[in-house]
Amino acid sequence: MLKGFTVPKSPFGQAALTPPPPWHYAGDAVGVEFWTDPDATAATLPIGLSRDPKSNGRAVMMFLDWQFTAQDDEYLDPARYQCREAFILVGAMYRDVPVMWCPYIYVDNDAALACGWTQGFPKKIGSIFQTRSFAASGPAAAPVASGSRFGASLSAHGQRLAEACVTLHKPVENGLSLLSRPTVLLRYFPRLAAGYQDKPTVNELAMSITDNLTVAGAWIGKGELNLPETNGEELHALAPNRIESGFRYSLSYSVSDLKILEDHCS
Amino acid sequence: MLKGFTVPKSPFGQAALTPPPPWHYAGDAVGVEFWTDPDATAATLPIGLSRDPKSNGRAVMMFLDWQFTAQDDEYLDPARYQCREAFILVGAMYRDVPVMWCPYIYVDNDAALACGWTQGFPKKIGSIFQTRSFAASGPAAAPVASGSRFGASLSAHGQRLAEACVTLHKPVENGLSLLSRPTVLLRYFPRLAAGYQDKPTVNELAMSITDNLTVAGAWIGKGELNLPETNGEELHALAPNRIESGFRYSLSYSVSDLKILEDHCS
Amino acid sequence: MLKGFTVPKSPFGQAALTPPPPWHYAGDAVGVEFWTDPDATAATLPIGLSRDPKSNGRAVMMFLDWQFTAQDDEYLDPARYQCREAFILVGAMYRDVPVMWCPYIYVDNDAALACGWTQGFPKKIGSIFQTRSFAASGPAAAPVASGSRFGASLSAHGQRLAEACVTLHKPVENGLSLLSRPTVLLRYFPRLAAGYQDKPTVNELAMSITDNLTVAGAWIGKGELNLPETNGEELHALAPNRIESGFRYSLSYSVSDLKILEDHCS
Amino acid sequence: MLKGFTVPKSPFGQAALTPPPPWHYAGDAVGVEFWTDPDATAATLPIGLSRDPKSNGRAVMMFLDWQFTAQDDEYLDPARYQCREAFILVGAMYRDVPVMWCPYIYVDNDAALACGWTQGFPKKIGSIFQTRSFAASGPAAAPVASGSRFGASLSAHGQRLAEACVTLHKPVENGLSLLSRPTVLLRYFPRLAAGYQDKPTVNELAMSITDNLTVAGAWIGKGELNLPETNGEELHALAPNRIESGFRYSLSYSVSDLKILEDHCS
Repeated sequence: MLKGFTVPKSPFGQAALTPPPPWHYAGDAVGVEFWTDPDATAATLPIGLSRDPKSNGRAVMMFLDWQFTAQDDEYLDPARYQCREAFILVGAMYRDVPVMWCPYIYVDNDAALACGWTQGFPKKIGSIFQTRSFAASGPAAAPVASGSRFGASLSAHGQRLAEACVTLHKPVENGLSLLSRPTVLLRYFPRLAAGYQDKPTVNELAMSITDNLTVAGAWIGKGELNLPETNGEELHALAPNRIESGFRYSLSYSVSDLKILEDHCS
Repeated sequence: MLKGFTVPKSPFGQAALTPPPPWHYAGDAVGVEFWTDPDATAATLPIGLSRDPKSNGRAVMMFLDWQFTAQDDEYLDPARYQCREAFILVGAMYRDVPVMWCPYIYVDNDAALACGWTQGFPKKIGSIFQTRSFAASGPAAAPVASGSRFGASLSAHGQRLAEACVTLHKPVENGLSLLSRPTVLLRYFPRLAAGYQDKPTVNELAMSITDNLTVAGAWIGKGELNLPETNGEELHALAPNRIESGFRYSLSYSVSDLKILEDHCS
Repeated sequence: MLKGFTVPKSPFGQAALTPPPPWHYAGDAVGVEFWTDPDATAATLPIGLSRDPKSNGRAVMMFLDWQFTAQDDEYLDPARYQCREAFILVGAMYRDVPVMWCPYIYVDNDAALACGWTQGFPKKIGSIFQTRSFAASGPAAAPVASGSRFGASLSAHGQRLAEACVTLHKPVENGLSLLSRPTVLLRYFPRLAAGYQDKPTVNELAMSITDNLTVAGAWIGKGELNLPETNGEELHALAPNRIESGFRYSLSYSVSDLKILEDHCS
Repeated sequence: MLKGFTVPKSPFGQAALTPPPPWHYAGDAVGVEFWTDPDATAATLPIGLSRDPKSNGRAVMMFLDWQFTAQDDEYLDPARYQCREAFILVGAMYRDVPVMWCPYIYVDNDAALACGWTQGFPKKIGSIFQTRSFAASGPAAAPVASGSRFGASLSAHGQRLAEACVTLHKPVENGLSLLSRPTVLLRYFPRLAAGYQDKPTVNELAMSITDNLTVAGAWIGKGELNLPETNGEELHALAPNRIESGFRYSLSYSVSDLKILEDHCS
C-alpha cells in the first residue's frame, strides 16, 4: 500500500512532495495595499465570486519569507523547508461575505507549490526577495523602526514581474483591515483526455482555514509598487492606480483543514 | 469567464502554467537499463498494477534534455520552454498487458511539472544534467560514435540522487525493448479537508498516449548507475543489482490525449 | 605546497574553481550583428583601444551553450562542466589592428567565470537560454535549415537584459566577417587597501588566443535584438539602431595561452 | 575613462559586480567549532602561515545569511544584495600571531564572490541554507532560546558538502574565543600566458580588517557537523574528529580596507 499525502506515493511515504498536514508556518511579510482598475480585478474572479461594491479594485501585493515544518522537525532541513513567496489578493464577495481572492501566486520551492495546489493557491515557480531585518545594528540591518525601508521583488523565468518598496511609519494598532477577510481559492485540476480538456476533474471554490494565526511587529507606512508588463503573465493587468499603504509584519499559523464552498464539477 | 488549461486561470489565458495541448516535445535521452530488487520495484506499484513475472525488478533510469512547444512557437522562448528531466520506469503488469510504471520523476521547470501532473507523472523539482553532443569536433564535443561517453546526474534540494555514465558501442537495430511498452501513471490530487485527507479527489490509473513518436540516432552500449541514499527521497531503494545496458537517442513526440484506465475514487 | 590553477588552492588541487589549462570547449552559438550609437561603443573602450573608423558602432550579441573539459574527462560531469553564456563584442582598434572588445559578459557557472576572469572576460553570473536544435524531427525540434528560428535570452538577478531571435536563411559561405578579428580583453583585479582602491593590482590589456578553432553548420539570416533598460547594468546603452544579420553555428576550440598586450600598472 | 571598482568597468560604473567600498554587512551566523586531523588543517596553509601548536586541528564551520549595502541603499534591491555563505576557518600562526585561515568558502551571489576575491576569500558558488528565527511564535519559528535548534547545509553543483545542526544552551558571556583572532587570506590571481601558468600575477597574504563589528544575540550549545566526501572539493578532508560546540549569533560590520602582510610575487 503506497503512502504519502501527495505524489509521488511511495512505500514509506518519504518521497512525497510534502509531509501530511498539519503544516506550520512562520514568516515575514512585506506588502503594499493599493487600488487598481475595478474591471481588472473583477476579470480575475472565478464563478461563485462577485465584485465587492465597497472594495472594487482594492488589492494587496504580498512578499513573504517562509519557514515551514510538519511533525518531524522538517524546519531543521532549511534547504527543503524554507521558501519565498509573492502573491496578490483582490477584494471580492462570496455571496454576502466580503472575501479576498488570490488570482496569482509565485513560490521558489516545490513542496510549497504542492501544498498550495491542494488548497487552491495557483502557484507557479518564481524568484522572490525582500529586504530582511537583522538584530545587529548597522547600515545594512534594516531595523523595524520608523523610517526604515524594505524593498521586495518578484521574477519568473528571468523576467521581473513586481518591485515594491515600503517605508515604515508607525506600528499598526487595529490590524490590517483587508487581511482580516477570509481568502477564497480555486482548487482546480484539469483533465487531459481528448474531448474533456475543458472539463476539469477538480473545480472547487474553497476557503482557506488558518489555525493559531499570530502576528508580531506589524508596522504600516508608505508603499510603492511597480508591476511591469511581461510575456506569459497577466499580473501587470492589476497595476496600481493609487497606493493605499505599505506594511511589514511577522506572522505564523498552521494549516490542517480546508473548507469547500462549492463544487463546480457536480 | 476565466481561461487557461491549468491554474492560474486568467482573463486572457496567458498566465496558465502551460498552454493547452497538443504539446510537442523534442529531446535527447541518456539512459541505463538495469535490474534491481524485485520486491523494491513491486513495492512502488499502485493498486491496479501487479508484478510482471518476466521482468521482475527490471528498470530504466532516464535523463532527458527537452524542448517543448504548443501552438504559438513557444520554443522561441527557451527560458520557459526548455527543461531537463530525470525519471525511473519499472516493469509491471496492467491486467495481462506488460507496461512500465513511473514511480519517481524530477524536472527543472514549472510548466513541465504542471503538464506532468495532469498526465500522472509525479514530478518534483530537481536539477538534471547530461553530457551533450556538439557538431563541431574536439575534446569536449562528445560525438555520437562508438566509444563516446555521456555522463548524467540528478540532484534535488542540494542532494545528489543519481549519477550515470553511458559508453556507446553500436547503433540500436531493433528498438529498445523495454521502452516499447506503454507507460502507466497515477493521476492523483489529494483532499485537504479535515477527515478526508486520505480520500484523494483524483486517483486515476492512466496510460500515456504519445503521437508521432520519432527516434533518431539510437545507440546502445555499457551503462553505469549510482543511486546514493538521501533524505526525503526513496529513489535509492531501487539501486541496481546488475546493469543491462546504457543507451542514448534523440526523440520527439506530441501529447494531446490520455487514456484513463481505472478511477479509484468511484 | 598548495596546488591548483585558481583559488581555492588546496593540498591535492581538486578544489580549485577550474582545472589547469588547456581548456577545451564545444558549443552552439546564436548571435545578432548590429549597429549601435558609435559614441556608446567608444565609451566602453579601455585605455589602449580606440574607435575603429570603419566599424564605429558595430557590435555582435552572442548567446552560447557550452560544454568544456580539461585533461580528466571533466565533460562527463555535466553539472559542473556545462554552461550558458551571453556577451557583446564591439569593433575597435588596437594600434592599427582591427579588433573586437568585450565590455559585458554573463555566464551561469563559477568555473567558467573563473576561467574568464583569468583571460580578461569581465564575467558576471546570469541566466542564459537559446533555442536548441534536436535530431528527431517535429514541431519542437528547430532543425538547422532555411526558415528555422532560434530565440535567445539573458537575465541577471531576475531582470531580463537581452532578448534575440534569429531566422536562418542560408549557410555561411565566407565566414562571419566580424568574428575573424582577434578579441581584446582587460585582465583587471582591484586593490582593496585604503588609499589604493583606484590603483588596481592587475590592469593588463590582453588578446585572446584560441587553438584549433572549428566551426560547423554556420547559417546566416535575419536577426532581432532587444536590450531593455535595467538597473545595475549598462548593456542597454548599446541597444541596436540597425540590425545587420542573425546567425547560428557550432564551434569548438581550446585555450592554453593568452597574449598580454600592455600592462597598465607598470 | 571607464569607472567601477571591479569588472566590468563601464562608462557610468553601474555595471561593476560590486559598488566601491565601504561595504556594510548584517547577518545571522550558525556555526560549529570542532577539532579535525591537525595534518589536514596544516596541509591547507599557504606559504607564510604555520601550524599553531596550541590549536592544531582546530576549526570552525560557519553558515551565514547576509544582507549588504554600499552607499546607495543597495539593500533595497534584495535580489542583488542578499547572499548566503558558508566557510571554514582553521587555526594557524602568522609569525607569532595566532590567526584563522580560510581555505574554503562558498556563496550564492556574484557580487559577494567578487568582493570576496578582492579580499582573498577563495569563493566558489554554492547553495547555502540555515534555519531562521522568526518573531511570530509557533512550531516553525525557531526562537533564540535554550533548547532551540538550527540546521544548516551547503551544496555545490548538486552535491551536498556540509550539514550541521546547533542546539542552543545559553547566551555567550565572554565572546567566541576562536573568532577573536584576525583572519588571514590569500589574494591570488593566476596568469594564463603559456610558460607562466604557475607564476600568479597576484599572490599576497592579507589580513581582513572589519570596522564597527557588532555582535547581538550570541548563544552557545551543542554542535553537529557532517562533511561528506564529494568530487571536485576537498572540504571533506577537514571532517570533524571531535565537536567543541555549536553557536548562533547576529553580526554586522563594514569593510573599507585590507592589510597586505606579504607579497609572494615580489
